[in-house]
Amino acid sequence: MTRSRVTVFAPATIANVGPGFDALGLAIDRPGDKITATRTDKPGVTLQIRGSRAGLPKSPKDNVAVHVAQLMLSELAPKLGVKLELTKGMPVGSGLGSSAASSVAAVVAVNALLPRPLPRIDLLRFAVEGERKASGAPHADNVAPGLLGGVCLTRGGDPAEVVKLAAKDAFVWVVAHPHVVVKTATARKMLPRNVPLSLAARQWANVAGLVVGLVSGNATLVAHSCEDAIVEPVRAPLIPCFYGVKEAALAAGALGCSIAGSGPSMFAIVKLGGPVQRVARAMREAFRGEARLRCDIYVSRLNRDGARISGAARS
Amino acid sequence: MTRSRVTVFAPATIANVGPGFDALGLAIDRPGDKITATRTDKPGVTLQIRGSRAGLPKSPKDNVAVHVAQLMLSELAPKLGVKLELTKGMPVGSGLGSSAASSVAAVVAVNALLPRPLPRIDLLRFAVEGERKASGAPHADNVAPGLLGGVCLTRGGDPAEVVKLAAKDAFVWVVAHPHVVVKTATARKMLPRNVPLSLAARQWANVAGLVVGLVSGNATLVAHSCEDAIVEPVRAPLIPCFYGVKEAALAAGALGCSIAGSGPSMFAIVKLGGPVQRVARAMREAFRGEARLRCDIYVSRLNRDGARISGAARS
Repeated sequence: MTRSRVTVFAPATIANVGPGFDALGLAIDRPGDKITATRTDKPGVTLQIRGSRAGLPKSPKDNVAVHVAQLMLSELAPKLGVKLELTKGMPVGSGLGSSAASSVAAVVAVNALLPRPLPRIDLLRFAVEGERKASGAPHADNVAPGLLGGVCLTRGGDPAEVVKLAAKDAFVWVVAHPHVVVKTATARKMLPRNVPLSLAARQWANVAGLVVGLVSGNATLVAHSCEDAIVEPVRAPLIPCFYGVKEAALAAGALGCSIAGSGPSMFAIVKLGGPVQRVARAMREAFRGEARLRCDIYVSRLNRDGARISGAARS
Repeated sequence: MTRSRVTVFAPATIANVGPGFDALGLAIDRPGDKITATRTDKPGVTLQIRGSRAGLPKSPKDNVAVHVAQLMLSELAPKLGVKLELTKGMPVGSGLGSSAASSVAAVVAVNALLPRPLPRIDLLRFAVEGERKASGAPHADNVAPGLLGGVCLTRGGDPAEVVKLAAKDAFVWVVAHPHVVVKTATARKMLPRNVPLSLAARQWANVAGLVVGLVSGNATLVAHSCEDAIVEPVRAPLIPCFYGVKEAALAAGALGCSIAGSGPSMFAIVKLGGPVQRVARAMREAFRGEARLRCDIYVSRLNRDGARISGAARS
């Protein structure tokens, strides 16, 4: 008896997390995308989009969810057909891993419909194909935490290597998504090709400190290590009033604050039980007061298990 | 009642530990330096060297142990005099933190003679002055683990910031010290000023993975992360037959193998209960067979507490 229909929620993810450019990513609990997948008799994948289509490609075949679902089916169950209903719960181009959330929701949903579902980690290679389609490169720093949850270390390469770290539930993540658009491709083009070895060494001490701080729940270590002297200064100008918002978040009690992915969303880390609402308000007001920009605020704990199956019917 | 005489052992340290150039260091249990410090009535510091003087400066005032002891006394107890007896248990210029061990032994010993000894971490600023004297820069990556034990993350700067990580006792460190000389200054001059961002990002994923692996005792993660694509390739030519020794260690079952500090010593990480003797033998034979070099082998667990006071008399 296999499933005939399944609904999957895939969470937003914060890549880079300050100093960890192309190496670190973590999952939060909201926002996220939802996909209901239903088995059909006719081979192939169809797509229905519920709610806003803002920013999504016009043709279903260009949608990352359809793309990864097709790849999976053609390799694992070529006779199976799947209807996907996608509810886009997160803004496209926000820096929160919107394409990753759709890809992850699709692979987890399609997997659940297979007669012999694969282990989560084996879905990574399909999910990164969604990233390849969306941005040209099979980055794993959003899809890995989206699939597996928690804090993930990824090492570039094709295929990417991923390690999920057992991180303590000791922090709250405040994300502010200002209503401006930053193209990932533009943000990547701004990156320097080379960096001074002295800065790089400071950065790897920071990445290691941040990871150990997150894993062990050490707030002081997180606060000291959440420093990015390489990528943040280059990308900050893409976000109106970046430094004003960052200073406001830190002044309100955040341990650290930087760019989520390639922006424009910004994240702040707050100690569990700390001044979460004050930090959220400070970020919102800084965007509004200094840049006349509206923003959405998401407050969330670490999502420790990744995408979750919320409903299923069996046949 | 304060101490009138104290004996301190300060351990060898492995800086860099593969990918963590200028950021990581850890203490092992042997070899190490021993200093006996005796309070005297005449202000100032005198030095007696027991055993080999090979590689040490001719004048006592150029010895790092004397230098840091004088700095401490002039700031904290200008009327106190101290006689230092140094037994150099480790080779100078080995890459195992020889100057750091002398500095650490001296500051811990002098501290123990003070009416109100300082906490260990407060001795760091004196110990780094020994490194400044020895190499021109106040590096903390050897003195920090020598003082505090365990695995230490250091961030450059003056003063350096140091975090001691609570690492599991899950690995054995095999160190091979071949009888060749590599000058730290030469090894530093070979370093590139700039590195590609893509390599740097891979390196910081490796540093974070290695640190988490060491802290949590995850051998697979240690094995995957102990990779240095930036500094090791540049410095390897300074060590005769580096790649032969490395391959021999890995083939014998080491999880990782790289240069200790700036060399010429090489370290291999072996799982606790793993083929420690086989790795040691493989490294020794590779140095002898391929480079006709004799080497000393040290096998040691992680030193988790740093320098230790082994004997004291009170007055």
